[in-house]
Amino acid sequence: MRLRNVKNAMDIINNSPYMILNPMEYKGRYNKDVFHNDNPIHLEIGMGKGNFIIDKAIKNPNINFIGLEKYESVLCRALEKLENYNLSNVKIIREDAINLADIFDKEIETIYLNFSDPWPKKRHAKRRLTSYVFLPIYDKVFKDKKVIMQKTDNVSLFESSIVNLSTYGYTIEEISLDLAKTDIENSLTEYESKFMSQGVKINYLKATKK
Amino acid sequence: MRLRNVKNAMDIINNSPYMILNPMEYKGRYNKDVFHNDNPIHLEIGMGKGNFIIDKAIKNPNINFIGLEKYESVLCRALEKLENYNLSNVKIIREDAINLADIFDKEIETIYLNFSDPWPKKRHAKRRLTSYVFLPIYDKVFKDKKVIMQKTDNVSLFESSIVNLSTYGYTIEEISLDLAKTDIENSLTEYESKFMSQGVKINYLKATKK
Repeated sequence: MRLRNVKNAMDIINNSPYMILNPMEYKGRYNKDVFHNDNPIHLEIGMGKGNFIIDKAIKNPNINFIGLEKYESVLCRALEKLENYNLSNVKIIREDAINLADIFDKEIETIYLNFSDPWPKKRHAKRRLTSYVFLPIYDKVFKDKKVIMQKTDNVSLFESSIVNLSTYGYTIEEISLDLAKTDIENSLTEYESKFMSQGVKINYLKATKK
Repeated sequence: MRLRNVKNAMDIINNSPYMILNPMEYKGRYNKDVFHNDNPIHLEIGMGKGNFIIDKAIKNPNINFIGLEKYESVLCRALEKLENYNLSNVKIIREDAINLADIFDKEIETIYLNFSDPWPKKRHAKRRLTSYVFLPIYDKVFKDKKVIMQKTDNVSLFESSIVNLSTYGYTIEEISLDLAKTDIENSLTEYESKFMSQGVKINYLKATKK
């Protein structure tokens, strides 16, 4: 993001009704004090420009969605899109996933990992969002049954996710090596729309753990 | 196989020193009375023309290999190849995998499923060698820790294997969506050599269960 736009970005972030600016204050109280209902809360880590979570929220009014994104520039794009809607079941948090256990306490029902950074180098493997670093963090934020849904075009990330999730005790309940060819209900991310138009295959899995 | 060759095929099968013609008689006694050693026994279900199991046996003299194949025509090709070697660690059984629990009793350490019939139609799904029909049969023939290693070019078979194995309690320890690009030690089947020369991607997994 160009420097001259940073102030504008911070203005958008600080003034959007969709932003939770002080997320740690709501730890353990998101249902009660943020959404004011008992609907399940789904979390997208790295929501980018927001296409996926906005589409999900529109289609599923009885589910609460929280988008986590650490980069201001893309986060602003999501907030600008959200201005076109009046959605009470979406909130956005600007944070790094490494801090998730400081933000939530046993209140998330599903985590979406869409086109996460593949961190291809072996020495960066622990930064992948399905690494041994993140899976114990997710344990702390999941309410009861754990559900992780991942989509990626990156084969190496997908392979390591299957092994890491399986080794950590998750069951792979659904999988597709070419999501476009299935009839699984799907909300598209920005990346995904682009990839699909190029014929790139999207890998998908749903993993659960009791 | 052409009819005029059937008699010849049966002659080859009935006279090969590699064949176990009455496998059910050795149930529970393969180490003691067939191989005369305590080495681990690995089983390939559907060994076809035998390239994989012969290569494995040559490379691993301290492992006993049993090839299961129900079709005479390809089985004969394997026996003809075996005539060129003097291998004490390979035996061949002509049987259907559905009868495995009548042949073995807690004595197999690893099962290989290479390029198994994908049975693509949903109503035939139970015939796939990783279906809910076969996994309980494998439980009866595995010695202790269960190890299944699968290779296939068929994406649908691979997807259903991951879900079935994972749901049945197996951990996916290793996986590759393009085996040729890995440094995993590999013995090629007949299909695989052909596929690789055509650039077809081979899916591979290693699943274990305690």
